Amino acid sequence: MITSNQNSKIKLVRSLMGRAKERREAGMFVVEGVRLVEEAVKGDWRLETVLYDESLSERGKSLVSSLKSKGIETEEISTDLMKSISETETPQGILAILQFSPLPILRQVQNGVTNPLNFVLILDQIRDPGNLGTLLRSAAATGVQVVLIPPETTDAFAPKVLRAGMGAHFRVPIREMGWEEIEQIGKSANQQMSKSANLQMYLADMNGKSCWETDLHQPLALIVGGEAEGASEQARKLANERISIPMAGNVESLNAGVAGSVLMFEVVRQRK
Amino acid sequence: MITSNQNSKIKLVRSLMGRAKERREAGMFVVEGVRLVEEAVKGDWRLETVLYDESLSERGKSLVSSLKSKGIETEEISTDLMKSISETETPQGILAILQFSPLPILRQVQNGVTNPLNFVLILDQIRDPGNLGTLLRSAAATGVQVVLIPPETTDAFAPKVLRAGMGAHFRVPIREMGWEEIEQIGKSANQQMSKSANLQMYLADMNGKSCWETDLHQPLALIVGGEAEGASEQARKLANERISIPMAGNVESLNAGVAGSVLMFEVVRQRK
Repeated sequence: MITSNQNSKIKLVRSLMGRAKERREAGMFVVEGVRLVEEAVKGDWRLETVLYDESLSERGKSLVSSLKSKGIETEEISTDLMKSISETETPQGILAILQFSPLPILRQVQNGVTNPLNFVLILDQIRDPGNLGTLLRSAAATGVQVVLIPPETTDAFAPKVLRAGMGAHFRVPIREMGWEEIEQIGKSANQQMSKSANLQMYLADMNGKSCWETDLHQPLALIVGGEAEGASEQARKLANERISIPMAGNVESLNAGVAGSVLMFEVVRQRK
Repeated sequence: MITSNQNSKIKLVRSLMGRAKERREAGMFVVEGVRLVEEAVKGDWRLETVLYDESLSERGKSLVSSLKSKGIETEEISTDLMKSISETETPQGILAILQFSPLPILRQVQNGVTNPLNFVLILDQIRDPGNLGTLLRSAAATGVQVVLIPPETTDAFAPKVLRAGMGAHFRVPIREMGWEEIEQIGKSANQQMSKSANLQMYLADMNGKSCWETDLHQPLALIVGGEAEGASEQARKLANERISIPMAGNVESLNAGVAGSVLMFEVVRQRK
């Protein structure tokens, strides 16, 4: 049983739960809790190490047994140590170090032909980890094919984002990239396909056209800006059109997680 | 300038930022930050005392001056004291003690006739303060006429809920009540009116009928349950119908703030 703060695995977990830079350099991240570890296993993600303590639930214990039998490294640690490294107030007694493995972009294949990219989400300057996780969760729930993350947004694999995402990270492909690359994707996404080479770029903006009066059937990317600063200069330049959610009374704005989610579900509603 | 932790106003602020019981007994609550204090003033809420420190922005300072000139008690406190009582990591340097004053229920009046109650939100077992605040914010943005809060839900006037609400508390009427009273409102809401005495009670439930295929024009109450336990036994009994948001792939659930908000906006979309 690991009891020392100085153990190399404990040190690794701490650094991976800290700055994005550490996660990128190591090519790894950490998830906490029985449900998220189960989701990672179900999605065939590569588990480096699983740490648990005796406070783990029965469901969690049988998960650990099944991981052991698959040859995955599992280590018991002391409950005090688990409390000290956990990001949550009431740790569930299990965490796993995972290898990054980018999910393939979700393109629909019909009769052996790959359909053009038609539903992309761009999350711009989202600083709040809870909002970012919520948006990823809604992206998974609405069948977004890929989420593009420009540099100004919080790291999608930070512990709080993973927690709010509730497993979305294992279902929807996430790609960090610069604005030039995003622009290229918008322009060339469907170039190899015969129809509609460009994605229509919609920016969520309270001064835009009502989303209920905008035809959202064509291939599109939806750009959602952060609450504090709104969308960046680059996002504004890239956008072909601005869409809004009509609001009652004198209310100015919505939570960014809510605004993006309402728009994603409007795309699904129109296309259903 | 107040510098002591033992000052009676500081003690009052601490207790009002703590348990719901203290707020209920005192009939007061505390808001933090320039924007929320401005919203309270704009909404004509009664300010008991305003505390500020020298870190306050120019906009905040002119707010304090204007409050002083209106005869509202304002007191400077030390920056250390502000940091120690603030709920936020980076305090904005101002907080206000407010008197509860229930907003009147938002009934539409057309040609001198009061229309029946037609859009009520019931927030059931919502434990997460951020989600509760987000739902109140969306309620204000969708013109919900009154939000009913049964006993199992987090106190709506807790600091984190107020922060996430972004001023919604000053715009949408909020009523805490037991399930019997909620049932009575559902049954008798519009009894004095000639048409539609009962509110249709819709429970948000992933096994319900698609919200896009449900006619949401009639007077209704929308019941949104918490993420952890879902809706309570009482909510299930009260519901006439269950509605869901159709989801892609194998995703089971949405963030409760998002699910409730998508449904509220669907009501507005259909009625527009």
